[in-house]
Amino acid sequence: MIPRYSRPEMASIWSPEARFRIWFEIEAHAADAMAELGIVPKEAAAKIWELGGKAEFDVERIDAIEREVKHDVIAFLTHLAEFVGPEARFVHQGMTSSDVLDTCLAVQLARAADLLIADVDKLLAVLERRAFEFKLTPTVGRSHGIHAEPTTFGVKLAIAAAEFQRSRARLVAAREEIATCAISGAVGTFAHIDPAVEAHVAEKMGLKVETVSTQVIPRDRHAMFFAVLGVVASSVERLATEVRHLQRTEVLEAEEYFSPEQKGSSAMPHKRNPVLTENLTGLARMVRAYVTPALENVALWHERDISHSSVERMIGPDSTVTLDFALSRLTGVMDKLVVHTDNMQKNMDKLGGLIHSQRVLLALTQKGASREDSYRLVQRNAMRVWRGEGDFRTFLLNDADVRKYLSEEDINEKFDLGYHFKNVDNIFKRVFGRA
Amino acid sequence: MIPRYSRPEMASIWSPEARFRIWFEIEAHAADAMAELGIVPKEAAAKIWELGGKAEFDVERIDAIEREVKHDVIAFLTHLAEFVGPEARFVHQGMTSSDVLDTCLAVQLARAADLLIADVDKLLAVLERRAFEFKLTPTVGRSHGIHAEPTTFGVKLAIAAAEFQRSRARLVAAREEIATCAISGAVGTFAHIDPAVEAHVAEKMGLKVETVSTQVIPRDRHAMFFAVLGVVASSVERLATEVRHLQRTEVLEAEEYFSPEQKGSSAMPHKRNPVLTENLTGLARMVRAYVTPALENVALWHERDISHSSVERMIGPDSTVTLDFALSRLTGVMDKLVVHTDNMQKNMDKLGGLIHSQRVLLALTQKGASREDSYRLVQRNAMRVWRGEGDFRTFLLNDADVRKYLSEEDINEKFDLGYHFKNVDNIFKRVFGRA
Amino acid sequence: MIPRYSRPEMASIWSPEARFRIWFEIEAHAADAMAELGIVPKEAAAKIWELGGKAEFDVERIDAIEREVKHDVIAFLTHLAEFVGPEARFVHQGMTSSDVLDTCLAVQLARAADLLIADVDKLLAVLERRAFEFKLTPTVGRSHGIHAEPTTFGVKLAIAAAEFQRSRARLVAAREEIATCAISGAVGTFAHIDPAVEAHVAEKMGLKVETVSTQVIPRDRHAMFFAVLGVVASSVERLATEVRHLQRTEVLEAEEYFSPEQKGSSAMPHKRNPVLTENLTGLARMVRAYVTPALENVALWHERDISHSSVERMIGPDSTVTLDFALSRLTGVMDKLVVHTDNMQKNMDKLGGLIHSQRVLLALTQKGASREDSYRLVQRNAMRVWRGEGDFRTFLLNDADVRKYLSEEDINEKFDLGYHFKNVDNIFKRVFGRA
Amino acid sequence: MIPRYSRPEMASIWSPEARFRIWFEIEAHAADAMAELGIVPKEAAAKIWELGGKAEFDVERIDAIEREVKHDVIAFLTHLAEFVGPEARFVHQGMTSSDVLDTCLAVQLARAADLLIADVDKLLAVLERRAFEFKLTPTVGRSHGIHAEPTTFGVKLAIAAAEFQRSRARLVAAREEIATCAISGAVGTFAHIDPAVEAHVAEKMGLKVETVSTQVIPRDRHAMFFAVLGVVASSVERLATEVRHLQRTEVLEAEEYFSPEQKGSSAMPHKRNPVLTENLTGLARMVRAYVTPALENVALWHERDISHSSVERMIGPDSTVTLDFALSRLTGVMDKLVVHTDNMQKNMDKLGGLIHSQRVLLALTQKGASREDSYRLVQRNAMRVWRGEGDFRTFLLNDADVRKYLSEEDINEKFDLGYHFKNVDNIFKRVFGRA
Repeated sequence: MIPRYSRPEMASIWSPEARFRIWFEIEAHAADAMAELGIVPKEAAAKIWELGGKAEFDVERIDAIEREVKHDVIAFLTHLAEFVGPEARFVHQGMTSSDVLDTCLAVQLARAADLLIADVDKLLAVLERRAFEFKLTPTVGRSHGIHAEPTTFGVKLAIAAAEFQRSRARLVAAREEIATCAISGAVGTFAHIDPAVEAHVAEKMGLKVETVSTQVIPRDRHAMFFAVLGVVASSVERLATEVRHLQRTEVLEAEEYFSPEQKGSSAMPHKRNPVLTENLTGLARMVRAYVTPALENVALWHERDISHSSVERMIGPDSTVTLDFALSRLTGVMDKLVVHTDNMQKNMDKLGGLIHSQRVLLALTQKGASREDSYRLVQRNAMRVWRGEGDFRTFLLNDADVRKYLSEEDINEKFDLGYHFKNVDNIFKRVFGRA
Repeated sequence: MIPRYSRPEMASIWSPEARFRIWFEIEAHAADAMAELGIVPKEAAAKIWELGGKAEFDVERIDAIEREVKHDVIAFLTHLAEFVGPEARFVHQGMTSSDVLDTCLAVQLARAADLLIADVDKLLAVLERRAFEFKLTPTVGRSHGIHAEPTTFGVKLAIAAAEFQRSRARLVAAREEIATCAISGAVGTFAHIDPAVEAHVAEKMGLKVETVSTQVIPRDRHAMFFAVLGVVASSVERLATEVRHLQRTEVLEAEEYFSPEQKGSSAMPHKRNPVLTENLTGLARMVRAYVTPALENVALWHERDISHSSVERMIGPDSTVTLDFALSRLTGVMDKLVVHTDNMQKNMDKLGGLIHSQRVLLALTQKGASREDSYRLVQRNAMRVWRGEGDFRTFLLNDADVRKYLSEEDINEKFDLGYHFKNVDNIFKRVFGRA
Repeated sequence: MIPRYSRPEMASIWSPEARFRIWFEIEAHAADAMAELGIVPKEAAAKIWELGGKAEFDVERIDAIEREVKHDVIAFLTHLAEFVGPEARFVHQGMTSSDVLDTCLAVQLARAADLLIADVDKLLAVLERRAFEFKLTPTVGRSHGIHAEPTTFGVKLAIAAAEFQRSRARLVAAREEIATCAISGAVGTFAHIDPAVEAHVAEKMGLKVETVSTQVIPRDRHAMFFAVLGVVASSVERLATEVRHLQRTEVLEAEEYFSPEQKGSSAMPHKRNPVLTENLTGLARMVRAYVTPALENVALWHERDISHSSVERMIGPDSTVTLDFALSRLTGVMDKLVVHTDNMQKNMDKLGGLIHSQRVLLALTQKGASREDSYRLVQRNAMRVWRGEGDFRTFLLNDADVRKYLSEEDINEKFDLGYHFKNVDNIFKRVFGRA
Repeated sequence: MIPRYSRPEMASIWSPEARFRIWFEIEAHAADAMAELGIVPKEAAAKIWELGGKAEFDVERIDAIEREVKHDVIAFLTHLAEFVGPEARFVHQGMTSSDVLDTCLAVQLARAADLLIADVDKLLAVLERRAFEFKLTPTVGRSHGIHAEPTTFGVKLAIAAAEFQRSRARLVAAREEIATCAISGAVGTFAHIDPAVEAHVAEKMGLKVETVSTQVIPRDRHAMFFAVLGVVASSVERLATEVRHLQRTEVLEAEEYFSPEQKGSSAMPHKRNPVLTENLTGLARMVRAYVTPALENVALWHERDISHSSVERMIGPDSTVTLDFALSRLTGVMDKLVVHTDNMQKNMDKLGGLIHSQRVLLALTQKGASREDSYRLVQRNAMRVWRGEGDFRTFLLNDADVRKYLSEEDINEKFDLGYHFKNVDNIFKRVFGRA
């Protein structure tokens, strides 16, 4: 997480101020529940809310205390006591630091997930709008980077939309995984604390109760969460890579928006580079990189060790802030993408109809040629086109073996573009529920 | 995937024979659908089923053809034609290789997921049985590898069970992700093939229709699948690590079963090592390692490139076979785990009641001492125990400052083990639905 | 490691037969050294060589014994005793399994490194030959996928060569890291074995003595080895990616060789796809994937645990066999690469001289225009070309602001290609030591 | 890189101020070289040094310019011109941004490497001192977490020292990999810039000339660099894991220093946890995580794309700062490690001499028993000890089959600890060059 690739709303989730505020809320809600159970005086609970609620926690002061006691939650509680006074001794009763830390992390990750889901929603809206804009814009479909058969640019965007619909569903599931509350004490046995406290805090903080914890919320949940972020980032990379390909000079079917004041290169004034999508490729690498340490965090020793903590202090913000930035940047790129439909047509025409080879192949087999023979007949004419010897249709028309099966009209009919678009509506309905 | 860490049922999913059989079924079902649509003769479809259905595909022959044509599906179709005869030209009409390959992979991964789910079910049954067996067996809970507070061995096993319940749910979701069928042609436009064919094949093969494909099924699905396997493997590692810790000589609270003929070391005849769970730790590293290439596979170029293929040829079998083996091995370990309840008690008693420090702390605060003071009072006596100076309870009883708040009876009551187990039923109900 | 991506010589290093033969040699050399020290009878050592040397070890028999004793080295020793008879009791004296296993692994990895170094040498020879072939063939240099400035195809190949020269040096260093022998006993103290045995075996097996071992050779060595393989694989991916880009339909500056019998697609007979280099991209992902488990293997518990073993049984062969295959395949691709120099020229001319924008910029600044102004003047003309409005040189000649600084002759001179190639000899000398 | 895990000296390498200062130096040295070549006026070069040398670059101002031109180097050059005036047009002549960026990164990484090497040197000094302190302190060696045979705590520390000696050598090699300078222009052809400029800047900045660059320094170099950091971090984890194990309550052979004011747990005042070494375990996960994106950065498109940049903006600081912190923390831990030699002895005695089983085994074979029989005889007595039935030595003395080969004196002699330490001097000489 570096400022260059951060957006304020997501970054603020991870500020010390936000963290201490959540810690306070967890402690204060827990005090309420304990007051309800008669474990702490109701007045104490009220005092905690009142005096702590308006306290402005001093991050530097807390850090100073921590340098002495070498324990972050104790440092916070000490500072809180400076506001709350003697009632502070009712704070954190029977709880352990991780009750606070892990429940707080759950709140932060759930909030982060909410922002990411909203990001994807914005991206989906853009993709849908532009998919309909280019619904029937012909463009060549490519496999292996080689021309394959015609498709439309709208279909390409619909494909991206379908992928981000899946991303959305995965993020919702990841949020579900992570949004649990544990207030179960030192080794998860509720020895010193009634499970009712956990239930109350969970409800107030918008979380579910963790089935069973061990001082900590089990880290398979977090591993799953960060793994999902890695998958979503990979989908970002996929669409970014598509744009990078489309912008390369020889293709130039689409371009990132290039503002009038922008400079593409310090040395070469002619440059207009797909720098945003290249950047997204790099950011995706980072979000993916955070998956493995999250997986390594699962096997904590016995009821818990604290090796996961430093990892999460880094990847918690790094992973969510980076993905948030990436989704937002991708949305901007797709929103303003400059689409060169003329170049799409030009590229499609480049090989003189070679992209229709399969239709000719199928026609031959349907007219009785064996699949093997048909393939050979079409391929031998296609290879001449690659060698630059001329035009595919002309070759076919002049190939006596082909003409044994296909008339001139038969052949010409195979070069019709419309044939390929008859299921576009069908595809759009599948993805967008409408066409 | 190496024989040493493979089980036959999972490995057989990945055999060439199994793959070719699935390919055949996809092609034959597609032919049926096309016959229904009047695209190919019904007799041809029947012939394909009849002659192909009883064909014994010759893997070496297919390999030989592939070496010539350098294309695996074409090699298979050529071989299939040797059985089916002239009707073979109706096979694969309007389809592209990936229609067959990707739908086949979906079938294989779905089957693999089924086996993994069954593996987890077996493990869960063992964990539940043993959790109840040791439901109230006292053992020390440890954080940071250091004694924390009492728990029961049954609770420890319940925690593992809850984790594998989540593993199960994740595997079910991963199966859902992967089990889709795509028969949509060269660039996913259904140009040469009616979507009805896809629908028919999907139904017959037990899959859902892929929303939209691009010659290939989008690889974010597979990334998600392998990521889930990585998370499950990490949970395997966690429980394996627990066993390794429990077996270490100084702890020896549990041991892998050691058969009478077994030899622990070629050099040291006294050795009984936790080799199975160490092995599981290593296997988990491998299943995790396969996550990143699966993530890197997502960003294929344009409609598709084939870089994912070699990765999947490796991690498809490697990941599923290894995890299947690991789950089964873990089940065996837990099933036969030798539990030394006497050592559990001995270890718990090792520090003379230090594990009750929190109860004393809480009692002090409840009697009016500030949290800060209470902490200091308890800690100063505890540290003497660490220095080997004597017994915690005795120190407390003799500490005048402590005694200002707590009577002898008060103090003694804090050393009661039963206090810690009052919510064990509650925990068991949460995990197993019963106590 | 799957047959499809294996070459026999590398695969044979990892066969059980090869492993058992190395085990035997280590044991027999150790017996020699012990005989020299008077610890075992010289006749016994001679007998071991004589009877063991001609023994044909039966892999299945060893496996069967292992299933009983659950220990691979003991199983081997038991089998060896079946050949050697009573003298077998002098085998493995004071040694521990890892003395044999780890020294064997060192031999295997060193042999694998030798093959990989030889692979790189072959690749380098091909790259050098083809670099000189196209030393002055003009082609456009691209940054961000966008035309930048002219270079030559020979320079591009020289760049690849320089990278594989570094790969070679890294492999040599990796071999050095790994090629150590440890015969130091159960915890590395040489309690039961004289260090002279280690020294003798090391020399005979072509290894160095490990500085200090702990039953096992420390795994940071292996981590470094597999990390280097991951770096080399990434360099394979880089050159493979270059070929994939050059072959894409709109670029088509180079192509993988496509044999007359080859079929590019089961559906589209016109296809010629860069399948080999796409495959290399996937294989590189796998070799990279093996780095992380090797890193996770370093932190073994205490003097050793055996979690590294399953990892190495997999990545030992998988990593070396895959990289060997990849290097060999890449060599084949580059050897037979079909280069379309005409398309290189055509692509370079595509933007009407825009690739010379920097020269104009520099000329303007040298004639006294500020860098800012110069940039603006060049950029405004360049952007018109991107908009398809016409020819760069013509725009410049007609731009009055430009002409304040530059004459017609000045401008025309900036479009000379030769200007860019004046240091090609220099570059070649740096890389190949000759031009 | 977060403040909690950062040390100022390493962090300052990555400050914007440091970066801009290095950029300036590269530009100014380049101007000198160009002045020498007569390309720019000598007075201009002097002016650049004079006015730029005393300029205080305004990071916020540069950021503001960058927001407009969307190019960081152009923003810097624009700001530099505000100090240097009209002579600024001679800055960056014929250079491209990457000439500056990549050479700067090389300087930063080389400086980072220097700090890391110094860190390792400090760690090595501590390890050597403490190794000699405990050179002959007996402690049990463990494999699989199970008692194996005696060793000394000094030997354990010598093993760690040997590993960090290798770390040091790897860091030196990594520095060598990375410390190159490229000033070769837009596509590395030296079209607009004389190679003499590169040579001059390289020398002045303490770098070597890059053999051949492509606008950028090839990223296999950086991949190798970060891979080495991952290996070194794994060695940190190994030693950290050892400390964690030694501190666990049942073992307690060593402990992290625990200061009088420290609090181990907010809830349990008795706790003293190995939090520093647990933290190191987590930090190692992070440094390892940065390896894969560095590997993915290698395959840039054509002469370069910019996807590597965002990755390096993160992992450049994150990886070096984290490893620097980790090495320093580890040094502190080892420096102040509290060693409980009494517990080492107590643990060693725990199994009544079982750790001498191999000596008995060897004695039996030397007296003529077959290896198989010897093993069985020793194992059957050892297993009784595990079952808690009594004392190993007594069992052996009473085993008639054993006594056929070994006298009482023979057996007793096998339980001598000194036997195991006879090669400690040898080991120390190998590691430290002295004993």
